[in-house]
Amino acid sequence: MSEAGEFDFIAQHLAPLSQGYEGAFGLTDDAAILADVPGLVITTDTMIQGVHFRKLEPWDLVARKALRVNLSDLAAMGADPHAVLLSITWPQAVRPAQMQRFVDGLKTDLEAFGIPLIGGDTTRGGELLVVTVTALGQCEHPLLRSGGEAGQDLYVSGTIGDAVLGLEVDTLAGLTGVHKAIVEDRHLLPTPRLKLGRELCGLASAALDVSDGLVADAGHLARASGVKAGIELDSIPLSSAAETWVRIQRDPIATLVKLITSGDDYELLFSAGPEKREEILAAAKRAGTHIARIGSLIEGKGVEVRTTSGELVRIDQAGFTHF
Amino acid sequence: MSEAGEFDFIAQHLAPLSQGYEGAFGLTDDAAILADVPGLVITTDTMIQGVHFRKLEPWDLVARKALRVNLSDLAAMGADPHAVLLSITWPQAVRPAQMQRFVDGLKTDLEAFGIPLIGGDTTRGGELLVVTVTALGQCEHPLLRSGGEAGQDLYVSGTIGDAVLGLEVDTLAGLTGVHKAIVEDRHLLPTPRLKLGRELCGLASAALDVSDGLVADAGHLARASGVKAGIELDSIPLSSAAETWVRIQRDPIATLVKLITSGDDYELLFSAGPEKREEILAAAKRAGTHIARIGSLIEGKGVEVRTTSGELVRIDQAGFTHF
Repeated sequence: MSEAGEFDFIAQHLAPLSQGYEGAFGLTDDAAILADVPGLVITTDTMIQGVHFRKLEPWDLVARKALRVNLSDLAAMGADPHAVLLSITWPQAVRPAQMQRFVDGLKTDLEAFGIPLIGGDTTRGGELLVVTVTALGQCEHPLLRSGGEAGQDLYVSGTIGDAVLGLEVDTLAGLTGVHKAIVEDRHLLPTPRLKLGRELCGLASAALDVSDGLVADAGHLARASGVKAGIELDSIPLSSAAETWVRIQRDPIATLVKLITSGDDYELLFSAGPEKREEILAAAKRAGTHIARIGSLIEGKGVEVRTTSGELVRIDQAGFTHF
Repeated sequence: MSEAGEFDFIAQHLAPLSQGYEGAFGLTDDAAILADVPGLVITTDTMIQGVHFRKLEPWDLVARKALRVNLSDLAAMGADPHAVLLSITWPQAVRPAQMQRFVDGLKTDLEAFGIPLIGGDTTRGGELLVVTVTALGQCEHPLLRSGGEAGQDLYVSGTIGDAVLGLEVDTLAGLTGVHKAIVEDRHLLPTPRLKLGRELCGLASAALDVSDGLVADAGHLARASGVKAGIELDSIPLSSAAETWVRIQRDPIATLVKLITSGDDYELLFSAGPEKREEILAAAKRAGTHIARIGSLIEGKGVEVRTTSGELVRIDQAGFTHF
């Protein structure tokens, strides 16, 4: 594509996504000017073809996931999305239809979440699609990882383990087509828990989003809060698909451990004092998001997972890690 | 590297670079909270090994260049650097010494420019180093690309064309070792013109940084301002190395055209009314940066380059483009 082509592409396809944000200048300047609003938070994440998503993943879904994993970080802070920047490197051999598909996905989600695209950069080269989203959010009283205390409850939203099943959907012999479609959708298009995050501000003592796996992320919250996370294995919420999958395995406990040590759930994990139980439930109801109490914070450090009978579950690898 | 390894790496090597920025939380939370300061501007750029820098480039220089190209965008707005975020994907086979070298370079420049690292993400996978820097700056009256008017002067800082010579330094038969070292340095480590940018606030009518090539970027400024850019070929400032190189070529004009249509100079190109000439010179002097008047903005659209005798120089490709 020629330089004129690049300008036309930005002007035609990306500039409208700035939705009139004043400091975005229709994506024509060197930097964007942020509106003077208090309590801005910022996060950034990169996704590389073949590393963070499969080589053949449709690009509309890539765009939407790149956006959503950043929105999930904002949700974990209890922040409202304010604006995003997009830094994209198209593969040298990119086809216009692929670019169009990427933009279609981006547009769908930016509009659905009501977020302007205010800047970024676009280049071309190499063999892989590389996408970095930088997301800005706004909140008055951000939720941190560090506020948890021993004696408090530990909760998680939605269901855990679907994303890793979705990633391996081709190997799930025994699941119905509907169940397969559900877990694959959960892998491809996580739901950032923005409403829940907002509702939890001033209510939860600590929060983060589950991206490295429930056990690993419970460890992060525990570490930041200077406590230990105690998780009851049987309290962890599973989808009907995941529950079915676990039940038909030879070693259900090992399968369950895999689900809670794999990543990309993008659910909120949070703590709150036991006196807040009713308020927490009401907040989840207002957000329209299911939550489950899965254990508590206790004195100590690290994470322990126990079965209903109180047996300690041995976990070798504390959660999937990209590193 | 294990997950524990990742945490140790962030805690030991990256967290100190947050320099106590309150909302960075020592790089331990999901997002960073920006200080409530007015006039924040934001920009982001991705650099991919083998695409935006050579496969064998030392990683300390990669880190510094990734930072500097973003600072150059801030300079073009007349903004002071406020903070940066870093999103990095290490190749799967990364060696600790390479990571250390990257961090060393990053630290060197963050300290030199006095900028805290306040967030980002770190993953590992694939075969290539991928680095995205998001830079935040602060300014009260940002310089835009769109304020130029017909009849105004056009200026550029520093010298043009060194970076492309530096990129091709192995082919520069006839240049001295000193000249080669100078142009290679200019390619590897551009100097963001931050002081000049600040001095030009309220003085220049339009500005940008030269990243796509002088001619292409003059076109961007002209397009945004709704005018034409007229450039005098012989007024374009060259380093002694570039001047020597042009002189010893069979077709000096063609060589000169190449220098002004190649990218990565990271100089400031700006316009100002002719009544401002003395003030502009004084501003450049205060910034300690050489500037040259290279032409003017005129009615029309596009860019024209003329020799001293008034002949139009034919330029086929309006500047290097990554696209």
